[in-house]
Amino acid sequence: MDQHKARKLLRQVADGSITVDEAVLQLRKAPFEDLGFAKVDHHRGLRTSAAEVIYGAGKTPQQIVEIAETLRSGGKKTVLVTRMDAEAAGYVKRSLPLQYYETGRIGLIGEVPVPDGHGKIAIVTGGTCDIPVAEEAALTALALGNEVTRIYDVGVAGLHRLLAHTDEIMSARVIIAIAGMEGALPSVIGGLADAPVIAVPTSIGYGAAFGGLAALLSMLNSCASGVSVVNIDNGFGAGYLASMINHIGVE
Amino acid sequence: MDQHKARKLLRQVADGSITVDEAVLQLRKAPFEDLGFAKVDHHRGLRTSAAEVIYGAGKTPQQIVEIAETLRSGGKKTVLVTRMDAEAAGYVKRSLPLQYYETGRIGLIGEVPVPDGHGKIAIVTGGTCDIPVAEEAALTALALGNEVTRIYDVGVAGLHRLLAHTDEIMSARVIIAIAGMEGALPSVIGGLADAPVIAVPTSIGYGAAFGGLAALLSMLNSCASGVSVVNIDNGFGAGYLASMINHIGVE
Amino acid sequence: MDQHKARKLLRQVADGSITVDEAVLQLRKAPFEDLGFAKVDHHRGLRTSAAEVIYGAGKTPQQIVEIAETLRSGGKKTVLVTRMDAEAAGYVKRSLPLQYYETGRIGLIGEVPVPDGHGKIAIVTGGTCDIPVAEEAALTALALGNEVTRIYDVGVAGLHRLLAHTDEIMSARVIIAIAGMEGALPSVIGGLADAPVIAVPTSIGYGAAFGGLAALLSMLNSCASGVSVVNIDNGFGAGYLASMINHIGVE
Amino acid sequence: MDQHKARKLLRQVADGSITVDEAVLQLRKAPFEDLGFAKVDHHRGLRTSAAEVIYGAGKTPQQIVEIAETLRSGGKKTVLVTRMDAEAAGYVKRSLPLQYYETGRIGLIGEVPVPDGHGKIAIVTGGTCDIPVAEEAALTALALGNEVTRIYDVGVAGLHRLLAHTDEIMSARVIIAIAGMEGALPSVIGGLADAPVIAVPTSIGYGAAFGGLAALLSMLNSCASGVSVVNIDNGFGAGYLASMINHIGVE
Amino acid sequence: MDQHKARKLLRQVADGSITVDEAVLQLRKAPFEDLGFAKVDHHRGLRTSAAEVIYGAGKTPQQIVEIAETLRSGGKKTVLVTRMDAEAAGYVKRSLPLQYYETGRIGLIGEVPVPDGHGKIAIVTGGTCDIPVAEEAALTALALGNEVTRIYDVGVAGLHRLLAHTDEIMSARVIIAIAGMEGALPSVIGGLADAPVIAVPTSIGYGAAFGGLAALLSMLNSCASGVSVVNIDNGFGAGYLASMINHIGVE
Amino acid sequence: MDQHKARKLLRQVADGSITVDEAVLQLRKAPFEDLGFAKVDHHRGLRTSAAEVIYGAGKTPQQIVEIAETLRSGGKKTVLVTRMDAEAAGYVKRSLPLQYYETGRIGLIGEVPVPDGHGKIAIVTGGTCDIPVAEEAALTALALGNEVTRIYDVGVAGLHRLLAHTDEIMSARVIIAIAGMEGALPSVIGGLADAPVIAVPTSIGYGAAFGGLAALLSMLNSCASGVSVVNIDNGFGAGYLASMINHIGVE
Amino acid sequence: MDQHKARKLLRQVADGSITVDEAVLQLRKAPFEDLGFAKVDHHRGLRTSAAEVIYGAGKTPQQIVEIAETLRSGGKKTVLVTRMDAEAAGYVKRSLPLQYYETGRIGLIGEVPVPDGHGKIAIVTGGTCDIPVAEEAALTALALGNEVTRIYDVGVAGLHRLLAHTDEIMSARVIIAIAGMEGALPSVIGGLADAPVIAVPTSIGYGAAFGGLAALLSMLNSCASGVSVVNIDNGFGAGYLASMINHIGVE
Amino acid sequence: MDQHKARKLLRQVADGSITVDEAVLQLRKAPFEDLGFAKVDHHRGLRTSAAEVIYGAGKTPQQIVEIAETLRSGGKKTVLVTRMDAEAAGYVKRSLPLQYYETGRIGLIGEVPVPDGHGKIAIVTGGTCDIPVAEEAALTALALGNEVTRIYDVGVAGLHRLLAHTDEIMSARVIIAIAGMEGALPSVIGGLADAPVIAVPTSIGYGAAFGGLAALLSMLNSCASGVSVVNIDNGFGAGYLASMINHIGVE
Repeated sequence: MDQHKARKLLRQVADGSITVDEAVLQLRKAPFEDLGFAKVDHHRGLRTSAAEVIYGAGKTPQQIVEIAETLRSGGKKTVLVTRMDAEAAGYVKRSLPLQYYETGRIGLIGEVPVPDGHGKIAIVTGGTCDIPVAEEAALTALALGNEVTRIYDVGVAGLHRLLAHTDEIMSARVIIAIAGMEGALPSVIGGLADAPVIAVPTSIGYGAAFGGLAALLSMLNSCASGVSVVNIDNGFGAGYLASMINHIGVE
Repeated sequence: MDQHKARKLLRQVADGSITVDEAVLQLRKAPFEDLGFAKVDHHRGLRTSAAEVIYGAGKTPQQIVEIAETLRSGGKKTVLVTRMDAEAAGYVKRSLPLQYYETGRIGLIGEVPVPDGHGKIAIVTGGTCDIPVAEEAALTALALGNEVTRIYDVGVAGLHRLLAHTDEIMSARVIIAIAGMEGALPSVIGGLADAPVIAVPTSIGYGAAFGGLAALLSMLNSCASGVSVVNIDNGFGAGYLASMINHIGVE
Repeated sequence: MDQHKARKLLRQVADGSITVDEAVLQLRKAPFEDLGFAKVDHHRGLRTSAAEVIYGAGKTPQQIVEIAETLRSGGKKTVLVTRMDAEAAGYVKRSLPLQYYETGRIGLIGEVPVPDGHGKIAIVTGGTCDIPVAEEAALTALALGNEVTRIYDVGVAGLHRLLAHTDEIMSARVIIAIAGMEGALPSVIGGLADAPVIAVPTSIGYGAAFGGLAALLSMLNSCASGVSVVNIDNGFGAGYLASMINHIGVE
Repeated sequence: MDQHKARKLLRQVADGSITVDEAVLQLRKAPFEDLGFAKVDHHRGLRTSAAEVIYGAGKTPQQIVEIAETLRSGGKKTVLVTRMDAEAAGYVKRSLPLQYYETGRIGLIGEVPVPDGHGKIAIVTGGTCDIPVAEEAALTALALGNEVTRIYDVGVAGLHRLLAHTDEIMSARVIIAIAGMEGALPSVIGGLADAPVIAVPTSIGYGAAFGGLAALLSMLNSCASGVSVVNIDNGFGAGYLASMINHIGVE
Repeated sequence: MDQHKARKLLRQVADGSITVDEAVLQLRKAPFEDLGFAKVDHHRGLRTSAAEVIYGAGKTPQQIVEIAETLRSGGKKTVLVTRMDAEAAGYVKRSLPLQYYETGRIGLIGEVPVPDGHGKIAIVTGGTCDIPVAEEAALTALALGNEVTRIYDVGVAGLHRLLAHTDEIMSARVIIAIAGMEGALPSVIGGLADAPVIAVPTSIGYGAAFGGLAALLSMLNSCASGVSVVNIDNGFGAGYLASMINHIGVE
Repeated sequence: MDQHKARKLLRQVADGSITVDEAVLQLRKAPFEDLGFAKVDHHRGLRTSAAEVIYGAGKTPQQIVEIAETLRSGGKKTVLVTRMDAEAAGYVKRSLPLQYYETGRIGLIGEVPVPDGHGKIAIVTGGTCDIPVAEEAALTALALGNEVTRIYDVGVAGLHRLLAHTDEIMSARVIIAIAGMEGALPSVIGGLADAPVIAVPTSIGYGAAFGGLAALLSMLNSCASGVSVVNIDNGFGAGYLASMINHIGVE
Repeated sequence: MDQHKARKLLRQVADGSITVDEAVLQLRKAPFEDLGFAKVDHHRGLRTSAAEVIYGAGKTPQQIVEIAETLRSGGKKTVLVTRMDAEAAGYVKRSLPLQYYETGRIGLIGEVPVPDGHGKIAIVTGGTCDIPVAEEAALTALALGNEVTRIYDVGVAGLHRLLAHTDEIMSARVIIAIAGMEGALPSVIGGLADAPVIAVPTSIGYGAAFGGLAALLSMLNSCASGVSVVNIDNGFGAGYLASMINHIGVE
Repeated sequence: MDQHKARKLLRQVADGSITVDEAVLQLRKAPFEDLGFAKVDHHRGLRTSAAEVIYGAGKTPQQIVEIAETLRSGGKKTVLVTRMDAEAAGYVKRSLPLQYYETGRIGLIGEVPVPDGHGKIAIVTGGTCDIPVAEEAALTALALGNEVTRIYDVGVAGLHRLLAHTDEIMSARVIIAIAGMEGALPSVIGGLADAPVIAVPTSIGYGAAFGGLAALLSMLNSCASGVSVVNIDNGFGAGYLASMINHIGVE
């Protein structure tokens, strides 16, 4: 029951067109969100930009098309589809203006918004194998209105390569540090930069990497301040959170 | 070698007062940070406010006093001491203006800065047992120039208590959600609010809680977007990161 | 040896038609269950309704047909076949009146009994991916004589969706709460409702979900009272137990 | 806002003593539970009997006394205090009519209600070391209005001892099966009895028992139907859930 | 109901001194073991020698005395008390002829039986720290009628020390191999000897030993045939099993 | 260097046909086993019967044929091939008298020896899914000269089925208890029988079974005495060890 | 900026052809490694021999060819390609002089350097299944200028086989000990030899081997001194490290 | 039987003073090591310097004194005692010239040998809490004849501090990198330096550090070549191995 409906109901009580008992009943049945203090469909919604995201895994191409069309008819200018394979993308392209990025397995329908955050989001990976996760993060951030700097394959075992990018890293407002294997990258970056670092462990590695567990534990124990961690391979989550941080206080 | 020294060296080369070979030697020996693209003592430094933090665990009270005095003589107006027990606090108080907060095992030397972030940081806990971790986060955030809203003991098993604070939670710029046991709080809050949620698992619980592992895994798998996780019981890290986010783009 | 046989044996002893020694031998050899204090084939049996279940995994379609025919000729009106793929269902349909439900990979042979429990069993899932497990639970409960309410895709990250179903949830006698990823659903429902909650972790998720371990630990540590847990993806077990609870004291 | 308050508010709107706007404001601010579709303080509350429980761990004796007095003055005839040590019990006894049961580390203030469930709750343990957890369950169930049958030290390695209690086990409406070490008891009981079995792993054991993990995993994998599991050593949770099940449909 | 009682009952039926109905009732109530196909108190009992064992952990000295006296009055010539500390031993000694072996924390009441097994049991340890577990095994085996050869501190990192005992090891009928840390001893011994090897991991070690887990896994994966494993630190279990094997077919 | 060779060498020294120096050299170079106190090729060898085993996994059919022919030409009357698929068996059959048992994935070349152990080996499984592991154990035991009793699908959740086999179980000299899921079978059997129980966890199960880990931990923590454990799915190891125990002291 | 470039820059400053300010700018922008105190591309580089390695996994044959050609045109005489399948090798062979070793999945382009280390590297495996990892190590060591001794299939369960190679093992300067299953080999070798032992756990095994975890833990807990461990299946890492050790102090 | 004894025995055979049979018997009984191809007491021995080590944990001060006196009377000039507390050190000092280093809990009896390795061993720690482990390594290396460079508290979160020591690190022959928490130090150092890196995880940290497990996994997955790992907190093992490497080929 939104404020308008509540107001209408109370006016009906005031003018006697419904009884108090009937009003009590309607109040008890009113869905929670209608009272105005919860977000409608929030858990799938993105910030109040014109963008929306569809989690593509487990959805048929036809379902993706239908959801995307509904969102677009509802006014969304940008629709992001994550975890979508090339075949599904081919299908969607037939009916919608989809740009497909195979590396990040992500599709963009509609226009990319003009960046309006505080600054740049730097996306840094330890190796080339981490790039698919990085691209998922990068395209998510782009679709949500952020400028993105990609710095790939600068793992800590070749420090000079990382240090060669010091200026780009230090000038970012938010940093997404992505690494598999020993997962040391976020700690080193957290020490270099004075910005929030979102650490993303990847499932890259073998043996005692245990599918990303080694990197995950490493990142959770980072001795650098300002580092927090999302789930293994969760590029979308990192990109979404980075965008949220980059728009703090932006009206 | 900072720019002044580099400039001086080059001038000496230019005027012939040192040879090229000597200059090469000096350049090779110059400590990395002197070239100006790394921060001095960054990993212990906080943002460019007047505050500094001392990790108290494993330090003698005398060591804490000495470090604090050095920092204060170096211009720091606020010094935070974390993981300090009451006995150490008693010792420090004799020579320094320490405010000691026993619950969070944290001490504040000097004045609390005026908040200058984008908005409030909400600190929410699932139970009363999580409060020590929450207080560590709260006092860290306060000492770094943030306004803090404490919302304690609103675990997901009593949803009405959490929902009663919907307005406070939704108006925060950053949220720190702290919970032990099943660690569900950040997911629920991540669904309600449109702000970054820093999840802190605590070691509260028994049996299959495995010292915070259950809450940690739960938080890493949050189905809400905008949630990231720090180490178990890491109240300081959460407070520090929340402050960093709350000051994005603040000059 | 059931009571009739025991009685007959004793009468033979009484009338001298067999010797004491022969009777001792027969008593020692009598299978345990025949003495009347164990249930015949209990571990596969269901409560004393007319229903029986066949665990389909690892059985050939031909084996399923044979077992089902034996059960039906033994008087069972309803036979449930779990974990059966579509191909096997096609085979069974040729000789038996099978209804196949592909989502839950479950088949029903015969009629669905009229519900005779205390009330409704609510089956709630966090996401759409959890629905196969939910359907296994739902069809099991239906086949065992229960009224079932399905409430799907109401995960805790979108609380309003869950709260919109408050009445249905609170009016259920037993609740089955099914979730993967962070597994927070049972805790929230356990706080809302005053009925036993059977929590089912699912293997949905990736990375630190570790095949359902995160959800499992989360559920075991639920801070809500009245919650217990079954194995990962064990929809059948939850439906069976819910039916058992829903028929407590029903003659 | 309970129905009485809502009704009063609406009457005030109806008679014009408050404006519609003021009423809207009050409705929005009303704590969720006041609308009548959530339980007041549910997560600590027990079913609608006259009993209430205080989790004693981490509370001072003085705090326990204060909470208990508040509950009693609010009409609760029975107050259960769990995880309370003997010293705290001694303190509470001075001001309240406490019965203290040291084995289960539990205290009962006030009268034990007359059992009003469907039938008996059988509490079965594998060894004598499991008895403290069993007593926590037993006294919880008693305080909530249940008849309890204790069957202790009947582990599966001495099957005759367990089978000697077949009648008691089979006549129970709900069974709580408590075991450490290999945790096999619930599986065996689940095969014997036709009632819901709540399995409680205990931290009893050494070496590869890993603090109850072995028993926990064993119970989750029970091949018997009708078995569900609560957290390691969670006697209270088992007793509470058993009572809830034993009162299904009881008005 | 043993055979004598069953025979008596049947004779009473035969001579009409009890009715068939009364006999049926008695049969149903007869504890399982009385029918003669289960062992009385088996799980605590040892093989049909004159020895019996009391698990001392968690028992008061007074309880130990009482149980031991009951056993001795029941005809047991040897009573073994495991996991008993020196203080308890002192108490027991006052009333019973106890020999206390502090290293193995084990006490022997009564006489040690004359060995009557097939041959010797060799008890081998990797280090000196494993000796307490070894002594628990050794004294258990001695009390159950076995000849024991102790070969201590012959870990695989000093192979010559182990090989110096090749004859003793190869002439044993059963071998108990006890090791912590990397747990390699049983594999090496399993390769040298042609007798069953009972491997006992110990909790000796630090770091990645994880309380005996490393040794346990190592032993379970032994590439030598004829090796089986008991729980971490379970010297008693190994000694008991070794004795059982050493008496196979011994009348 | 076996005794014959050593004796010959010494005689050569004694009669001067070789020098002392040459003898020293030969002694130092003599492979360890030749001195007579180690077994030739022991780790692949079986006891001193006429049987030998080939581990088929990872070997080509051609390799299996070659090894088998070598063994047979060396006097082995029985050759066992484990972990061999049907296709390989077909190949081997063309050139050797192979009996192939598909369930246990095991092949027998040559004649099965006449049993010469102390008694029977009982092989018991919890479910029908455990039968492949059981057959691997059974055929191994048969090939090594043992009489085998198979008791399958008698899991603890249907106790009457297990108890119906009490006589067979209690009359066995050695028992192999095989179970997946909760792994409770060895504990129950260990309580019933007075013979060594070799517990074999299987990887049967799903979810929290974790590939046999639950059963493994359960078995290691068995509260019954006389139980030891081999690796998950290690039917061969159990059969081999059981045979070894069954032949203790048999000349 | 290497020394030559730095020297040139300084000379330009000295002769006035560039200004001091321009030189400062160039110094600050110079990649870190150019200053001469970091190694160019070190993390992929090998020691200062003429050899280089390409990690083949995840690279297309075409990419491998391109990288190899670049390296060879840059003066590398030997290029090693690891984790390359036979198909890729076939492709590369068409344009480059590749020697392909299928067992170790490794390819060598160019000439094998003349060994110039302190002595031999012994590569020892427990079983034949470990040979692929061993060959990866062996060929890496060969390509880096080492003499290699292969000692395969000498697991600890057949000690005589290992001891037969004592001389070869004891005369090696560095030993690589490779084993799966229980991973005991490095401990035994560490006790025999007086050289550094690099332990490589392999993922060989099943059940409680947990993909190499058992061997890994075993090796980390080795009771022998001089043993260190690399990742599961990391033959390349072991070969590289062994070469590094074997060339210590070699100019 | 060493060569001298073997030679003597053979001469006795040659001259007929003992029979062939007697010689055979003596050969078979000769301890393995006497044949000259194993090291006497190797597993406790150090390299062929004059130093020896006593593992102090679990030994009484009196035992330490006795062992040390035996070693010294046997010609050892330096005896190292590890894991010894201050109290034990006080006792030992009364009778032996002990230098006690409390931080590393290590004692040195006798003179420190003159360094004779290839070069320096650098010992680097991430934090100050890692220093006790570092000192155990350092003093072990010193006692075994190595020059040691200590570089403490240079964790990766403050990269400039580490880089300030680049020259010292790069000029070392062997590097011991010690870190707790996220354990990233060895990876960064492995990328900077061209020497073997021995990584030592420490148990420093809390929460998801899991007693050193996070650092251990991180180090095992290092993306830098030339890194191997020893057990958590194993400073002695690292120092011993580093010395062994530093003396490769040194006569």
